[in-house]
Amino acid sequence: MAVKKMWGGRFTAVSPEFAQEFGASIDFDQAMAAEDIEGSIAHVTMLGSTGILPAGDVAKIKAGLEEIQQELADGTLPEFTIANEDIHMNIEAILTSKIGPVAGKLHTARSRNDQVATDFHLWVTHRLPEVVAAIDKLQGVLLKLADAHVETILPGTTHLQHAQPISLGHYFMSYFSMLQRDKERFQFNLKHASISPLGAAALAGTTFPIDRQQTADLLGFDEVYTNSLDAVSDRDFAIEYLSNSSMLMMHLSRLSEELIIWASYEYQYVELDDAYSTGSSIMPQKKNADYAELIRGKVGRVYGDLMSLMTVMKGLPLAYNKDMQEDKEGVFDATTTIMGSLHVMTGMLSTLHIKDANMEAAVQNDFSNATELADYLASKGLPFRQAHAVVGKLVLTGIQTHTPLQKMPLEQLQAASDLIDADVYHDLDPRVAVERRTSFGGTSFSSVKAQIKHGQTLLAEEDNEKA
Amino acid sequence: MAVKKMWGGRFTAVSPEFAQEFGASIDFDQAMAAEDIEGSIAHVTMLGSTGILPAGDVAKIKAGLEEIQQELADGTLPEFTIANEDIHMNIEAILTSKIGPVAGKLHTARSRNDQVATDFHLWVTHRLPEVVAAIDKLQGVLLKLADAHVETILPGTTHLQHAQPISLGHYFMSYFSMLQRDKERFQFNLKHASISPLGAAALAGTTFPIDRQQTADLLGFDEVYTNSLDAVSDRDFAIEYLSNSSMLMMHLSRLSEELIIWASYEYQYVELDDAYSTGSSIMPQKKNADYAELIRGKVGRVYGDLMSLMTVMKGLPLAYNKDMQEDKEGVFDATTTIMGSLHVMTGMLSTLHIKDANMEAAVQNDFSNATELADYLASKGLPFRQAHAVVGKLVLTGIQTHTPLQKMPLEQLQAASDLIDADVYHDLDPRVAVERRTSFGGTSFSSVKAQIKHGQTLLAEEDNEKA
Amino acid sequence: MAVKKMWGGRFTAVSPEFAQEFGASIDFDQAMAAEDIEGSIAHVTMLGSTGILPAGDVAKIKAGLEEIQQELADGTLPEFTIANEDIHMNIEAILTSKIGPVAGKLHTARSRNDQVATDFHLWVTHRLPEVVAAIDKLQGVLLKLADAHVETILPGTTHLQHAQPISLGHYFMSYFSMLQRDKERFQFNLKHASISPLGAAALAGTTFPIDRQQTADLLGFDEVYTNSLDAVSDRDFAIEYLSNSSMLMMHLSRLSEELIIWASYEYQYVELDDAYSTGSSIMPQKKNADYAELIRGKVGRVYGDLMSLMTVMKGLPLAYNKDMQEDKEGVFDATTTIMGSLHVMTGMLSTLHIKDANMEAAVQNDFSNATELADYLASKGLPFRQAHAVVGKLVLTGIQTHTPLQKMPLEQLQAASDLIDADVYHDLDPRVAVERRTSFGGTSFSSVKAQIKHGQTLLAEEDNEKA
Amino acid sequence: MAVKKMWGGRFTAVSPEFAQEFGASIDFDQAMAAEDIEGSIAHVTMLGSTGILPAGDVAKIKAGLEEIQQELADGTLPEFTIANEDIHMNIEAILTSKIGPVAGKLHTARSRNDQVATDFHLWVTHRLPEVVAAIDKLQGVLLKLADAHVETILPGTTHLQHAQPISLGHYFMSYFSMLQRDKERFQFNLKHASISPLGAAALAGTTFPIDRQQTADLLGFDEVYTNSLDAVSDRDFAIEYLSNSSMLMMHLSRLSEELIIWASYEYQYVELDDAYSTGSSIMPQKKNADYAELIRGKVGRVYGDLMSLMTVMKGLPLAYNKDMQEDKEGVFDATTTIMGSLHVMTGMLSTLHIKDANMEAAVQNDFSNATELADYLASKGLPFRQAHAVVGKLVLTGIQTHTPLQKMPLEQLQAASDLIDADVYHDLDPRVAVERRTSFGGTSFSSVKAQIKHGQTLLAEEDNEKA
Repeated sequence: MAVKKMWGGRFTAVSPEFAQEFGASIDFDQAMAAEDIEGSIAHVTMLGSTGILPAGDVAKIKAGLEEIQQELADGTLPEFTIANEDIHMNIEAILTSKIGPVAGKLHTARSRNDQVATDFHLWVTHRLPEVVAAIDKLQGVLLKLADAHVETILPGTTHLQHAQPISLGHYFMSYFSMLQRDKERFQFNLKHASISPLGAAALAGTTFPIDRQQTADLLGFDEVYTNSLDAVSDRDFAIEYLSNSSMLMMHLSRLSEELIIWASYEYQYVELDDAYSTGSSIMPQKKNADYAELIRGKVGRVYGDLMSLMTVMKGLPLAYNKDMQEDKEGVFDATTTIMGSLHVMTGMLSTLHIKDANMEAAVQNDFSNATELADYLASKGLPFRQAHAVVGKLVLTGIQTHTPLQKMPLEQLQAASDLIDADVYHDLDPRVAVERRTSFGGTSFSSVKAQIKHGQTLLAEEDNEKA
Repeated sequence: MAVKKMWGGRFTAVSPEFAQEFGASIDFDQAMAAEDIEGSIAHVTMLGSTGILPAGDVAKIKAGLEEIQQELADGTLPEFTIANEDIHMNIEAILTSKIGPVAGKLHTARSRNDQVATDFHLWVTHRLPEVVAAIDKLQGVLLKLADAHVETILPGTTHLQHAQPISLGHYFMSYFSMLQRDKERFQFNLKHASISPLGAAALAGTTFPIDRQQTADLLGFDEVYTNSLDAVSDRDFAIEYLSNSSMLMMHLSRLSEELIIWASYEYQYVELDDAYSTGSSIMPQKKNADYAELIRGKVGRVYGDLMSLMTVMKGLPLAYNKDMQEDKEGVFDATTTIMGSLHVMTGMLSTLHIKDANMEAAVQNDFSNATELADYLASKGLPFRQAHAVVGKLVLTGIQTHTPLQKMPLEQLQAASDLIDADVYHDLDPRVAVERRTSFGGTSFSSVKAQIKHGQTLLAEEDNEKA
Repeated sequence: MAVKKMWGGRFTAVSPEFAQEFGASIDFDQAMAAEDIEGSIAHVTMLGSTGILPAGDVAKIKAGLEEIQQELADGTLPEFTIANEDIHMNIEAILTSKIGPVAGKLHTARSRNDQVATDFHLWVTHRLPEVVAAIDKLQGVLLKLADAHVETILPGTTHLQHAQPISLGHYFMSYFSMLQRDKERFQFNLKHASISPLGAAALAGTTFPIDRQQTADLLGFDEVYTNSLDAVSDRDFAIEYLSNSSMLMMHLSRLSEELIIWASYEYQYVELDDAYSTGSSIMPQKKNADYAELIRGKVGRVYGDLMSLMTVMKGLPLAYNKDMQEDKEGVFDATTTIMGSLHVMTGMLSTLHIKDANMEAAVQNDFSNATELADYLASKGLPFRQAHAVVGKLVLTGIQTHTPLQKMPLEQLQAASDLIDADVYHDLDPRVAVERRTSFGGTSFSSVKAQIKHGQTLLAEEDNEKA
Repeated sequence: MAVKKMWGGRFTAVSPEFAQEFGASIDFDQAMAAEDIEGSIAHVTMLGSTGILPAGDVAKIKAGLEEIQQELADGTLPEFTIANEDIHMNIEAILTSKIGPVAGKLHTARSRNDQVATDFHLWVTHRLPEVVAAIDKLQGVLLKLADAHVETILPGTTHLQHAQPISLGHYFMSYFSMLQRDKERFQFNLKHASISPLGAAALAGTTFPIDRQQTADLLGFDEVYTNSLDAVSDRDFAIEYLSNSSMLMMHLSRLSEELIIWASYEYQYVELDDAYSTGSSIMPQKKNADYAELIRGKVGRVYGDLMSLMTVMKGLPLAYNKDMQEDKEGVFDATTTIMGSLHVMTGMLSTLHIKDANMEAAVQNDFSNATELADYLASKGLPFRQAHAVVGKLVLTGIQTHTPLQKMPLEQLQAASDLIDADVYHDLDPRVAVERRTSFGGTSFSSVKAQIKHGQTLLAEEDNEKA
């Protein structure tokens, strides 16, 4: 099928169908149908109030658009066609079928370049608070978990080696902090997403006496682009969105990695709920952390989405180029991915079975209290570097004899350093080790409680802002 | 809807629907439906010939699978469902509905891990010759264009500055060479794609007396994986495919960039056919190289696909992990992209209007023959570095006085160097400059003709191999 | 050479030299020597004021560190060695050589994990205002160019095809806008860079009564990490920095691309100053936009730096892992790249030769005023879509007869539409077309002047903030 | 300092120093000094044998170059300078200082474009066998480990969950297979690296009667580029190299991940030798798998190097552009990274302490033999899917009662299925489970031995080829 294009005036041949398919964007940009109609309604309203179009025309066009809007909501809109290339042309074709040639006036003082930019800005602007809300929910679950596990202790690790005992609440609050930064980034993202390009026209503005502030206000944009070339060729807001999504997924991939390791036979620190595990078609005993693995894996697709758009934009001359049609699919894909990942992670954590006893057992038999002994010696005046060496040798002996420090007899400890007294055993108790790390932001129970309180305040403030 | 999973034996709860959707792959892995059925037919055939399953069971299962195969071809297969997670479970569910519980025996001595790997290997293996054939076609068009334009001359550029006059045929043959390497890479890709993982089972092989060579032969694989852990966890062949696709798109992006520049008002070296151009909704005069721009832009998505899969595979422990479910969409997307891009580029080039006169005019008024003068002086014994300096100064004067070298009077040239004689004007003719570059691989007409002949031989040989 | 490590207490063997080299970071982390010393001085000052270390020890350590600080500034510091692994151990070794074993007390209540994080945060925090200042300078040049070229007109392009005539000042201001966003991103970056991790110790905080707020204040940090696990394992600020740098380079790559095209023989819109061009060793006439090309090329390395760090951080368990040693080189490399690119672009633009006449000539003979005619018809009541079609046909005729619209006789125009009158010729004048685009942010001279004024205000405000 | 450039003929101004530094490549391209000299010697030899230069000049130039070659080897060459931009100009400047202006004749019939391409091709071509040899060494260690551990059994995992017991030798052989593919890729890389661009000159070939085959032969290249435009603008071989390096590092990152997990307190499957571990400056008990982590982290920088070069090459017009100067640093960096990683991994594995007892203990108490029971039932005629369900329920009971399948009384098993007999206990022995997986490529001891033998043959063949 070879359809005459709306822009076909100077053209004498039509593209073969496979090329039309290659060039068409309707397959994916239909995701912005609502935004496209919303943008057109704002535009035609402004064309009316500025007198660019007579009131009668405006009324007809607006009524037609609102009908389409309703049909879209109801799912009764006729199917979009590749022959009409993109969402803009498809909506306009439907409008024309409804109200006749007056539909053609809608495009006065507007171009597809500022139209598509408007749709895309709107779409991202609408998503940002949804993403923030989804992060909020996950943070809520982390807060609850932290609150329930302030006094659950487990080995804190660096290099995946037991380092020092920590509070499990402290652990959960570290992810709370990461997600807080993620939210701050998505909120900052609004600054560059919520700018109206509408009225930039093709690239240079228009000779019609349009009112860009009015359309921006109608659409809820915070600002208006001050330069029309920039307005139609800027995709920074989308790259920011993908970069922010990448960091969010990176954080979730770290959490997933730990859940996977903790759910292993060797660790058994946690058990995932059946609802968030899957089995094997061949091995009946398997209970796999599939969802955590999927989230970890999906960081790849978001990194890829970011890299795609950055590659697309490299070296493009001003203003709009068709390359930029490649801007949307990655953003849509990243959105599905982060929303799904947040949702699933929220469900997975809120049903997580935590095996406190296994976690605590792990710190009773390791050497994660070695720092306590070094600190003990340092507090008695030994330079820390020497204290470290003394303890290092004791640990080596302990490993060879399977004796944790707290089970070594006093004389053995004193043989290593005569600064050691019987009070050392208090310091070597893992629970004490945790409790004593009262430095700001440390793992002591009091510090963790303070963090939780601070976190609750943060979430409550955000709720208030929304309300 | 909460469906009991096939692997659900030890499970007491089911996943919420949104999580099932998040985890399901049927949306995209149905692209491998044909391969999945093909793989199962080979597997059950082998189960029969080795006596693992009785002939009666084998016959029933095979008949059922062949019926499904036919229905898939006819488009009469029932719709796949997310409840059945993936293509493997969906096909098996359909099989069960056709032949009853004996369908369950198909999965003997096989796991989803080797099954999905088999499907994916088959899929890529099937695509490779198709990609090579599509490149072949584009090379065919380049050969024809080169043949038609051996003696069309234009400014060869480095840094987008006129450097030396070249043959347009020579230009087209450079892309022929790039594509030849692309083909060689895709052909090498077969070495690691065409290996059968079937029979590796979950990760460790199986206790059943299977015959992996038989299934490999039935499926047309060249080799069999020698290590079962590797068989189920290897995705190198897919990364190779994405890397090869990235390089192919990079080449096409370079060609696209030049077509876009050449089609500009300032260059007017080429005009794209109406069928491969698009217009503007607001600017009636526009004739945009949209297709070339899209191809250039689409390099981004393939780079992104590559980066995605490489990220997924980073740091994954053996053997299969659910992260690896993310391996397929990028490969499918890249395939659509490269096939479309090759197809469109082939059409665009074969309808391209070349404006020979404009190209040639460009070399008559620039200084792209400056090297000729330097070579002339060098051939008379002046060290090249000094010859270069002499000509540099003449060019500077020429630019200031708008006089190309070939239009400068002899005395002016001789004032710059007394090695210059009247025969210099012959050397300064751009056409002569092209013709004289007879070094192997150079731009002389004879060299270009030799390249074309060589290219024709290469394509013919490949045709023979296929025949 | 096999040196006994400071942490070697429990170790009985040493690494071979090639492995030590592989693991050492002193080659690159010495770039943070100043920050490391600064951090240690703040730390020991706090150890004194909290009474953790006696005043005498503190005085000795501080004096030693200040001596090292001075020697670093003077370039008289002894060479760092791989045997001492990293900048922290190197500085401590030098300190020990100066003041003896008391140096070992400096490490009380601190770990390399919070130390390296502190150094890196400080380093990035110090760079951010420098980057912003370098962007400011480039914006200053753009403002001057825009101011000088408000009334220079040239073809505005989309798809690299002449679209509508625009003011060259408008063009420059579009890059001003992009850079403004770049600055806003780097300023936001400070929010997550200027947080002190010092005192998080290894991962869990410390039992010593440290004062994290004091060290944060001494170092000029705006905030203190609230969670110690997060403090040592967060690299978001570095990823933000690389993402921001990527977008900045992307903008510069676009500007570079246009300069390269504009400097071509066919365009001749600009000539780069000799100081910002290079020649060819073989072609004496060449004047290459090497610097613009290098900037365009260098976008690749910054994208790569971003991808590297994102890959590193994927799936890392808490808290610190050695993988994270890979965080710094990319940030250092990106910094050198963006600072160099900004500096060179600033010099290149401020010496750019603009060929106004060629730019203006281009809009007098093309059809970039076609939209004017369509708008003219639309303003007379013809639906825009029909106006577009009418003009499209006229353009086609014009191209075939080499007649721009403004040179067509009135009767020819009226044959196409009887809405056309003699006043159309006024509208078709490219300069008028520019002047009439008075919509907010459009290309009219008045709009461009307003943009420039706004830009000047922005830069002045920032200067005031700094002052 | 503002030095007159060799190409400065038409230039009237010089670049400021910071711009010269930005543009200079001598900082990194000096890594190709040996290749540059080698290429020049081959070139001048050919200029002599074709009579392009007189024998006397050739002798002088060659002697000068050989002197420089010797001084480079001896480390007595004068320092390179930024004023001379790149390695080519630096070498030529030194040559001129040695033999006077006749040095200028060396550049006859050559350009920096083909010169730098030649150097880079040579450099990569020289590295490829070194990389292959380093992989060979690592494979050798894997073979030895496999051979020593054919009968060591451990839980094979999918999703990091115990799946089925496997031979540790089988595990090591899976990495042997991956590395074999890596080698095959680097060997294929030679096909596109070992092509001589020398004689392509600037872009179009040359008018001098050069002999490209002779220089190719002298330099050991397998082929000669057939198109001069392609010769100077092709960087495929470098992208292939980076892609191959990325896959190699990805494999090493997987192995590293497992070593890190296996070295954890909870696993204790392996202990890294002290020589390949590091400690903590604050926690005396720590023994970190730093080297494994570094290798895992360094996959990021190689991915970044690949992404950088792919970005650079996107959309570049033919032929050479200065952007391409960005091609080398990534390749050099990747080379250092992969060689170091291979070397360190080789050392780390060959000193690895394997804790066989812990590995075996793990399979005695888990349910990794559940598949055995399902297979047992299937072999008695129960459809596999039903067998799976039966076993799933038994496993659930077993987990709840802490009873592995092999310790359940027969009546309990028979209550689940009456197909079960006393012979089932034989099948449930993990060691038997391994031994019985005799399918080709499976984990049975005999299969592993066959794999090892095959591996030994492969390595021996390669040794023979090299000899």
